[in-house]
Amino acid sequence: MSAVLNARTDGYRVLAQADIIPHLATLTEIAAILGGAPSEWTIRDVADGYINAVYLVDGPKGGICAKQALPWVRYHGESWPLAEDRAFFEASYMRRLDPIVGALAPKLLHFDPVLQFLVIEKLTPHIVLRGGLIEGLRYPKASADVGRYVAQAAFHTSDLGVPFERKFEDIGLFAANRSLLRISVDLIFLDPYQETWRNRFVPELDAWAKAFRDDIELKTAVARHRSAFLSNRQALLHGDLHSGSVMVTEDDTRVIDGEFSTFGPIGFDLGAYAANLILNWYAQGGYDRPADERDSHRQWLLEQVAVLWDSFRHEFVAIWEQNPDTGGDLYPAAHFSGPAGAARLATIRRDYVDAIFADFVAFAAIKMIRRVISYAQIADFGVIEDTKRRAEMQADALAFAREVLKNPGRFTDLGALLDAIPRFEGTGLDPHAKG
Amino acid sequence: MSAVLNARTDGYRVLAQADIIPHLATLTEIAAILGGAPSEWTIRDVADGYINAVYLVDGPKGGICAKQALPWVRYHGESWPLAEDRAFFEASYMRRLDPIVGALAPKLLHFDPVLQFLVIEKLTPHIVLRGGLIEGLRYPKASADVGRYVAQAAFHTSDLGVPFERKFEDIGLFAANRSLLRISVDLIFLDPYQETWRNRFVPELDAWAKAFRDDIELKTAVARHRSAFLSNRQALLHGDLHSGSVMVTEDDTRVIDGEFSTFGPIGFDLGAYAANLILNWYAQGGYDRPADERDSHRQWLLEQVAVLWDSFRHEFVAIWEQNPDTGGDLYPAAHFSGPAGAARLATIRRDYVDAIFADFVAFAAIKMIRRVISYAQIADFGVIEDTKRRAEMQADALAFAREVLKNPGRFTDLGALLDAIPRFEGTGLDPHAKG
Repeated sequence: MSAVLNARTDGYRVLAQADIIPHLATLTEIAAILGGAPSEWTIRDVADGYINAVYLVDGPKGGICAKQALPWVRYHGESWPLAEDRAFFEASYMRRLDPIVGALAPKLLHFDPVLQFLVIEKLTPHIVLRGGLIEGLRYPKASADVGRYVAQAAFHTSDLGVPFERKFEDIGLFAANRSLLRISVDLIFLDPYQETWRNRFVPELDAWAKAFRDDIELKTAVARHRSAFLSNRQALLHGDLHSGSVMVTEDDTRVIDGEFSTFGPIGFDLGAYAANLILNWYAQGGYDRPADERDSHRQWLLEQVAVLWDSFRHEFVAIWEQNPDTGGDLYPAAHFSGPAGAARLATIRRDYVDAIFADFVAFAAIKMIRRVISYAQIADFGVIEDTKRRAEMQADALAFAREVLKNPGRFTDLGALLDAIPRFEGTGLDPHAKG
Repeated sequence: MSAVLNARTDGYRVLAQADIIPHLATLTEIAAILGGAPSEWTIRDVADGYINAVYLVDGPKGGICAKQALPWVRYHGESWPLAEDRAFFEASYMRRLDPIVGALAPKLLHFDPVLQFLVIEKLTPHIVLRGGLIEGLRYPKASADVGRYVAQAAFHTSDLGVPFERKFEDIGLFAANRSLLRISVDLIFLDPYQETWRNRFVPELDAWAKAFRDDIELKTAVARHRSAFLSNRQALLHGDLHSGSVMVTEDDTRVIDGEFSTFGPIGFDLGAYAANLILNWYAQGGYDRPADERDSHRQWLLEQVAVLWDSFRHEFVAIWEQNPDTGGDLYPAAHFSGPAGAARLATIRRDYVDAIFADFVAFAAIKMIRRVISYAQIADFGVIEDTKRRAEMQADALAFAREVLKNPGRFTDLGALLDAIPRFEGTGLDPHAKG
């Protein structure tokens, strides 16, 4: 895409791949990181998400990741316009969380608000977690790290960790991130339950998709959580924390791609991540791989859902206990002093975390459905070339998610949730068949 | 206060009473409303709230109300600073709601963002509702009108009435209204449950105030609603809708003073208004007035609580039914089509309104407590000169509010709420005595 086609009065232009190195050469700090002369730098297009242009640039001394928000959805093209100010929100999210999550995210090195252009620390030899999961690889720290990341980010941006003045300042900023939120609202909460050109399921899932469009109990449950997503401003969320937003090595984990950041219920981020582990669990049934290898990987995936939640809970409660009076307005120390106050706070913490668990489970189910029926499907299923086989694996996931949303009382603890996952294998393509 | 004392580089200065008429004379549209020459205009200081300067100006042709936000709390003085940008939020609130509530609020005629100076339609012969209630006067339309006002304002600023983009735009704007929100958070939700210089209760209430500071069940219940106030961004609230924010005649009602506006739970505004009716009910016990007159007025007050709620519910549900697809993201018509969808929506509406009722009752209790123990007490009790007698009436109100917050399951319908009010008369000054 030539920059000439995008002449605008505000100075924004789409940078072609050929424009990137000359532009970086003008940024002293970035040039110093790369080292040597620009003629020695190499560039690779690595955009594998759906919406932005992303390049890796290497020099004699080091590398960086360059990312530009385009005025449309990259994967779809110019017919799906999208405000490029999303890079501003990604930069704002990284800046807000950097002092909180530290090494669990890459460093933001540069942000240009005119070009909506970010330069970010290059992660190497990290790979995207989703790719590893499809390969059947294991990342022992990833899920525990993501649990800690969500706990830290959530606590310190909520009414527990900051006075409301600070929270309202953040809310004011991220309330302007509306183009990306419209994508979340449509693709996650609306499209799977209605007919729209964006839905992308395989024809073998027609009956399931129709059953979901007709299921008024299910749509009522989803509406309740859609309401929470739009109205419960509990903490600053990543907003798109699936396994494609996590870069991993065996011993390092980094959360990336915060452009969907918004204030919402803490369980939303946890649910997004768990959904992608569970979807991978179901997808494994369609892979040509020895049964014992598959079963072992599946067992590991279920353990990672538990690790995610336990890590989150442990970290969240620990931060709360260690910060009895951080200036948050929710439970001021003066209101809960003495042994009776301490005992009550322990109960309050348990209830608070239990409520997050209920959200976590529901949002996990909602995110699973969205990745099967709606736009932007995932490679976990995409690599299953036989579409009937793929649909069968996807139907298992849909059946599980439907049960979770319609009977939340059966999923009030982690054990119940994990035990249920294998029971929906072999559900089949008839959404009304009795198991 | 001389303007000279407030020289600032941003152009803001405190207008003295003598400055108002010369300033209004420079505003063509306002001068036209007043008519004649500025020398014919008369001015009266009518500030009876706690925080702003307010004047009524009359000319040969008409009158206006002029209001300036001062850089401090007017009633307290310069030692309690307060951001004067609150006039901006009052103007923003009036502009946002004008097309929605129409004649239930006065018109904003002029707003000067440098001076934080508003000119508003003069309401005549209206009086402040609180004054009328203390006199034992009846305003047959007031409570029904306030119910309709809240229904209209809430529906059309919530996810029911507007797409989230519009709601997030409003949220971004009002999230900056932090100085006034700090007052709400402190005076309503924190101060009554801790020792602070701002608390203003009479010494005879010491035991009750201490009992509230020590009541961990009560503080836990209040914390739950404090959390909802800070995190549940359900709709745009007035934020201070007590009987001093309502101007009335026999057949006209206007809601004024929206500077505390914020996004929050719809039940908060309803609770604020009802709290002041119920407080007046208890205060009547301390007035020297014939018993039959008092009993009859009290009966009328209880009826007005019912009228408020019924009017709100009726109007809110009617707007919802008449707007099946206004573009809100919460319950899109496409998800609830056909007879099954219509039946389900009826259930959803009932549940939605029931949840507002639970909030309404709890916030009414919280606002009652705040007006007895915290800063900015109300004339309803203030006119009872015998402080022991005053304290006895206030103790009744505290006992009722405590019961509502600690046993919400006993107050799930309007009848239960209204029946309970008289039962707390004669509670006495010992907070631990059994009734």
